[in-house]
Amino acid sequence: MQTFLEDAKNTTNIISTLSGEVKNKILNDMADALITNISLICEENEKDIQAGKTNNLNDALMDRLLLNKQRVKSMSTAINEISSLKDPVGRTLDGWIVENGMNIQKTSVPIGVIGIIYESRPNVTSDTAALCFKSGNVCILKGGKEAQYSNKIIAQILQNVLASHNLPRSAISLLPNSSRDGVANLIKQDKYVDLIIPRGGEALIEFVSNNASVPVVKHDKGLCHTYIDSKADFKKALDVSLNAKCRRVGICGAMETLLIHQDIANDILPILQKEFSKFKTQLKGCEKTQKIIDIKFASHKDFDTEYLDNILSIKIVKDVKGAIEHIKTFGSGHSDAIITENYSNAQKFMDAVDSACVYLNASTQFTDGGEFGFGAEVGISTNKLHARGPMGLNELTTYKFKIYGNGQIRD
Amino acid sequence: MQTFLEDAKNTTNIISTLSGEVKNKILNDMADALITNISLICEENEKDIQAGKTNNLNDALMDRLLLNKQRVKSMSTAINEISSLKDPVGRTLDGWIVENGMNIQKTSVPIGVIGIIYESRPNVTSDTAALCFKSGNVCILKGGKEAQYSNKIIAQILQNVLASHNLPRSAISLLPNSSRDGVANLIKQDKYVDLIIPRGGEALIEFVSNNASVPVVKHDKGLCHTYIDSKADFKKALDVSLNAKCRRVGICGAMETLLIHQDIANDILPILQKEFSKFKTQLKGCEKTQKIIDIKFASHKDFDTEYLDNILSIKIVKDVKGAIEHIKTFGSGHSDAIITENYSNAQKFMDAVDSACVYLNASTQFTDGGEFGFGAEVGISTNKLHARGPMGLNELTTYKFKIYGNGQIRD
Repeated sequence: MQTFLEDAKNTTNIISTLSGEVKNKILNDMADALITNISLICEENEKDIQAGKTNNLNDALMDRLLLNKQRVKSMSTAINEISSLKDPVGRTLDGWIVENGMNIQKTSVPIGVIGIIYESRPNVTSDTAALCFKSGNVCILKGGKEAQYSNKIIAQILQNVLASHNLPRSAISLLPNSSRDGVANLIKQDKYVDLIIPRGGEALIEFVSNNASVPVVKHDKGLCHTYIDSKADFKKALDVSLNAKCRRVGICGAMETLLIHQDIANDILPILQKEFSKFKTQLKGCEKTQKIIDIKFASHKDFDTEYLDNILSIKIVKDVKGAIEHIKTFGSGHSDAIITENYSNAQKFMDAVDSACVYLNASTQFTDGGEFGFGAEVGISTNKLHARGPMGLNELTTYKFKIYGNGQIRD
Repeated sequence: MQTFLEDAKNTTNIISTLSGEVKNKILNDMADALITNISLICEENEKDIQAGKTNNLNDALMDRLLLNKQRVKSMSTAINEISSLKDPVGRTLDGWIVENGMNIQKTSVPIGVIGIIYESRPNVTSDTAALCFKSGNVCILKGGKEAQYSNKIIAQILQNVLASHNLPRSAISLLPNSSRDGVANLIKQDKYVDLIIPRGGEALIEFVSNNASVPVVKHDKGLCHTYIDSKADFKKALDVSLNAKCRRVGICGAMETLLIHQDIANDILPILQKEFSKFKTQLKGCEKTQKIIDIKFASHKDFDTEYLDNILSIKIVKDVKGAIEHIKTFGSGHSDAIITENYSNAQKFMDAVDSACVYLNASTQFTDGGEFGFGAEVGISTNKLHARGPMGLNELTTYKFKIYGNGQIRD
């Protein structure tokens, strides 16, 4: 492990200073190599699939695990797309000249060694490896045990491309130890690792947060709200809330709770019930809601639950302030929306709700690097610091100050 | 403790949405209140001074601890200056319209609850409280036990000003428990605390880093280097290296190691020895250096030591690459400088040295928020993430995305 980590750290010097041209050429070669090795990848994936069957993984997990030719081609295309993005390294973020004439340039630089812990989907291996490489970082990947054969062959193929360009394989590596001990060890290595990104279930995130000495950018849950104000446009309210819940129920940007202003509850709830019934969404409601439409009771626990399922909790609130209060109590700081035509209510909500993404008259399902125009996405950070919300390539960099002087000394 | 933390968290809603005008008025009242209570502050400080004498604190610590009328006036002026700075909240950091017409605004917002752990100087209490308040954050301060009476009275005076404006005292508070347990508990409270800033000795920083589940921005050591290239202007080389070492030897931006290109060592070392002797700097050198000037031996351990004293290690290196290698091995990522007139050597050094501040032909002692034009300084971050190098008011904010739509739904 020690040698492994030292290798990773030492490799940062090489990877961080590669030109954009070289990095893009290598990324395109990586994309090609995935295509060339498509059969090999599918063969190795089959081993994971067989093991998954033996271990009785559910259908959703099995589908996430599966690689076929089409999916490998998509992985390849994703790397080509990352290659075509603007280099996130070397951007001048700010620059000024101080009184004594020194020119200070705040410049984006790679972070160093990034450890990424994730589950299931093997395409995350190639996606995140390519994103880290493009941003000049060395990555240490720790995928789920259930995808071990797939992840291993994908990493090997990418490493072979590095080697063919005389670059160290250690720029992209899988964490050697596949047990929880490996992770427990990795997250303590602040001497070698600069950032840990855990993507996965609550238990993993909590374990990493509580035990890491390396800085962590979490990809935690999204308990997202939509609030329909009394001054809402009804059509927008219906369209947006249906989309926020039903477009895909299992993503972190999906709405879990619908908040409704008391003055419009009588009018809009029956319509909402009818529309959601078309999607077979199970509705639960507070006592006041239950007096208007016949649905199950939504308890305190319901409002505190990220269903990731076709279930929606509904609560009637007094006003925009009541909505803000509810979100403050139950929200996870991911994505929350207000539907209103009223300027002051909109501003109040947009300012007071302390979430990564706050929407006015739009669906919370837009919280996504691609939708934001980042071109590629590391994930959705639920951290408040470093990166918040959709993380693209730029969020895989930090900065340093370059100070250009001419012999200045301090008084 | 639980109630204390809940109060702090709940107060963020009030403090984060105050207008700049209100915040500045209150800050000026705080500055006035320090002057009004100048005798009371000095009386309470005297208790710390007496305890310091009983505990045999050394002269340097006693001087750091002391408050007199002049120093309290400086604390007051510092708050007035913070009041006059531009509000760091609500800045549009980026903004764009995506294809479907949604307008995305990346906007600076307060971080929330910030815990600051520090030692000795009681002025840090009023400085950091004012910086946190100006940036819309609630702060929990944990000063050193040696300054407990001073810190307590300063915090009380600031809290009284808050109360006189009908704002909760919990916006600025001292951690109730003054033992290490209090800190150990605080840094685990990620539900209530958004950021911990430890400023102090290595033991404190390490304890916080290893045990915190709250994100940490460290203010760690500075083992700073200056490299004199073979193409350096000799006058600049002398001026800058003398300033980097001798202006103040006890600050984190002070040079600890001087690296010299082998081709100029014979010429420049005798001059350097003569100049440093005027400041009574104790020089230590590598074997090659010892062959040119008669000084003590600098061991591996010397090169790995932040003296914070009037001692300087000298090493002769082969070239700019050798200097970069040495800094990579021994540097702390704080501030490092190259003295050269050669463009390519300068660029090589500026790009490859991964420190918060990299200087060309200027003294490393410039690493300071005031010198950078930030107007006020929280400290010097040795973190790579969130804030790196001098931290001003802007670094006490994070961001959120405000997305302005018109009924957009995702396909």
